Amino acid sequence: MTTADMASKPSPHVVVIGAGFGGLACVRAFRDANVDVTLVDRHNFHTFQPLLYQVATAGLNAADVAYPVRGILRRSQRAKFQLGMVTAVDTVAKNLTLDNGSVMPWDWLVVAAGATTNHFGVPGAAEFGLSLYTLEDATALRNHVLTRFEESASGANDDGALTFVVVGGGATGVEIAGALAELVDKVLRKDFPDLDVSCVKIILLEGQDRLLGPFAPKLSSHAVETLRSRSVDVRLNTPLSRVAEDHVVLGDGTILLTRTVVWAAGVKANALGALLGVELGRGGRIPIRPDLRLIEHDHVLAIGDIAAIDYNGRLAPQVAQVAIQSGRHAAETILAVEAGGATTPFAYKDKGSMATIGRNAAVAEFPNGLKLSGFIGWLSWLGLHILTMLGFRNRASVILNWAWNYVTWDRGPRLIFRKN
Amino acid sequence: MTTADMASKPSPHVVVIGAGFGGLACVRAFRDANVDVTLVDRHNFHTFQPLLYQVATAGLNAADVAYPVRGILRRSQRAKFQLGMVTAVDTVAKNLTLDNGSVMPWDWLVVAAGATTNHFGVPGAAEFGLSLYTLEDATALRNHVLTRFEESASGANDDGALTFVVVGGGATGVEIAGALAELVDKVLRKDFPDLDVSCVKIILLEGQDRLLGPFAPKLSSHAVETLRSRSVDVRLNTPLSRVAEDHVVLGDGTILLTRTVVWAAGVKANALGALLGVELGRGGRIPIRPDLRLIEHDHVLAIGDIAAIDYNGRLAPQVAQVAIQSGRHAAETILAVEAGGATTPFAYKDKGSMATIGRNAAVAEFPNGLKLSGFIGWLSWLGLHILTMLGFRNRASVILNWAWNYVTWDRGPRLIFRKN
Repeated sequence: MTTADMASKPSPHVVVIGAGFGGLACVRAFRDANVDVTLVDRHNFHTFQPLLYQVATAGLNAADVAYPVRGILRRSQRAKFQLGMVTAVDTVAKNLTLDNGSVMPWDWLVVAAGATTNHFGVPGAAEFGLSLYTLEDATALRNHVLTRFEESASGANDDGALTFVVVGGGATGVEIAGALAELVDKVLRKDFPDLDVSCVKIILLEGQDRLLGPFAPKLSSHAVETLRSRSVDVRLNTPLSRVAEDHVVLGDGTILLTRTVVWAAGVKANALGALLGVELGRGGRIPIRPDLRLIEHDHVLAIGDIAAIDYNGRLAPQVAQVAIQSGRHAAETILAVEAGGATTPFAYKDKGSMATIGRNAAVAEFPNGLKLSGFIGWLSWLGLHILTMLGFRNRASVILNWAWNYVTWDRGPRLIFRKN
Repeated sequence: MTTADMASKPSPHVVVIGAGFGGLACVRAFRDANVDVTLVDRHNFHTFQPLLYQVATAGLNAADVAYPVRGILRRSQRAKFQLGMVTAVDTVAKNLTLDNGSVMPWDWLVVAAGATTNHFGVPGAAEFGLSLYTLEDATALRNHVLTRFEESASGANDDGALTFVVVGGGATGVEIAGALAELVDKVLRKDFPDLDVSCVKIILLEGQDRLLGPFAPKLSSHAVETLRSRSVDVRLNTPLSRVAEDHVVLGDGTILLTRTVVWAAGVKANALGALLGVELGRGGRIPIRPDLRLIEHDHVLAIGDIAAIDYNGRLAPQVAQVAIQSGRHAAETILAVEAGGATTPFAYKDKGSMATIGRNAAVAEFPNGLKLSGFIGWLSWLGLHILTMLGFRNRASVILNWAWNYVTWDRGPRLIFRKN
């Protein structure tokens, strides 16, 4: 899209930054509108983030949770894709600059750049902690875990080599701890018959007094019990004060020897917000009006994890549903202004939350008060994720992998991809 | 396995270097024997090399052609796996050293380290040519090709950006050229609606006067015709004299602008042969006796691509069937000597050759003179590869991907995995 093109077209050009749940929902909502849309992302694929922990624990292939953006956009005839990272935004001249140096003009800008890992300033966490926010993160974590086992099998078995510390008892921390326990118990035990699997330790650290804070207390207790029954050492009220290459230091000074720290303690908004020249809110989130437009900029909107979206007087959770719903609403706001009408305030509708703890065990909580746990919770988790996976082929491949894992207690994709 | 363990056990310790077709066939042939086997490889997975070109052209996921070695070995109770690269071999003390510094003793050593790219000393080929010998190669080539399209879509369209030169008209070169043509015509044309696909050039360079040298001339002609009908610019009798970052120079001085040179011109034996302290043969292959033992070493054998195996007075081709058959024979030789009996000479049985040219087109030639081409050739290629893929799940995933590609003319795994 060049400036010359723009001048000859009466329809506005909307640029959406980020091909996550929010950005894609926004682009799709423009499908039948008289609007040219360009979606910008630094990857050429959408990442289905809720299942990254399964890639990290060799339950799914990387490609199972990634879907080419150009394939998704084929159905939206007037939507284009641009690969690249945004390095500058000029809200006065209404354009943005990409890392390849090109300048892209826009009439409307929708910022949907999502969130990234928050290390909360814990010393060593950024350097030695393994995150789980991108597909590269997930593959790196899988390589790291499997390599620890291979090294131990070679006899290079220092203390803590097979101790895996997961920091943060939210949904991601619970999921990764549960999946790691399963990987070790059901798969690696058979893969490494000479290795004493009893020296493997999986420790889940949570600073508060319960896991899964946003869920009901009885579901939190269920998660603790299930994880403990699967040999995860759950430690509540246990803050972390430092991470080093071969150990962590707990709040009370205790040292745990480990070479693997999975950092699932929290997220903060993507640094892209800083390019907008506005004052950012808590966690780096971008302050917005009720219709999702920035307070200072009439033609810039923010949605999803990066936006300080209100939900009953508090910040909305940084989850897929908020991103999807706000993405659709952003399109409505833009179309309303373009049509000369009034915008409406965005209201997040909570459809419920879920977290899986492992095979046959998950918790789910719905706004009507319904709470599920155990096998029923797991079945509903399974159905929801199969339904919401993008694209038939990914869905089929995921089902195939899951069915294989479930029936055989095996994990196929336990591959260590080295960088040459 | 330590030296102390060895002393207490009467059964010999066989170390096999390389988890390719040859190494795996050898390990499996020991399944019921009174022998301890250790398989050493630098990857924790077996790579199904015949389908790497499909990973490179986004037809299959990387994980579809990789299978965890420890999973394969579960059926062989006395076989162990050791991840690592061999850095030294002491044929007198009978041990080898790994890159982690550990020393592994052996009673028998089977060298099955395979082959690697042969650049034949062409200037720039090693630096700028893209190989297709490992899974990392295949993923890197896919990233490279897709990135050229993304860059061109951004308008950074220098001459030659969308010219893809494949060097070498053997099976690999023909397969990759055909698959690239299909990727462009059936998938990228739709993914990049604004890009003029007619400026894409796929050029296959062959120094000899026909493609697929080992096949019958009529199959060679069929391959040329099929590729040309799919817009591949096949240039026979066209040697290459130099490769640079943004062009290649042909033997007659012609310059072709290109940023993508796929090097499929030939293979040479893995450099591991140099560690054995013996004089190597043509292409770096290890000279052996008819029973596959090294001429200088009674307890060291070489099999597959790395071995100078005789076939009717010439060197056997470096293909999977030779590796598999010689791997089994190596086990027989070792067991014969251990039993105090005589060894038998290895005789390669040619079961036929196949090469695919793309959708609905392949050539196959059998020792009885049967020649197949076109759709029938393609069906037999498809059936053979599905049958020989290792492991049910990989097979199912491959079938799923292929069925999807075939029915939809789509390619799912067109993902650019960046290294962060």
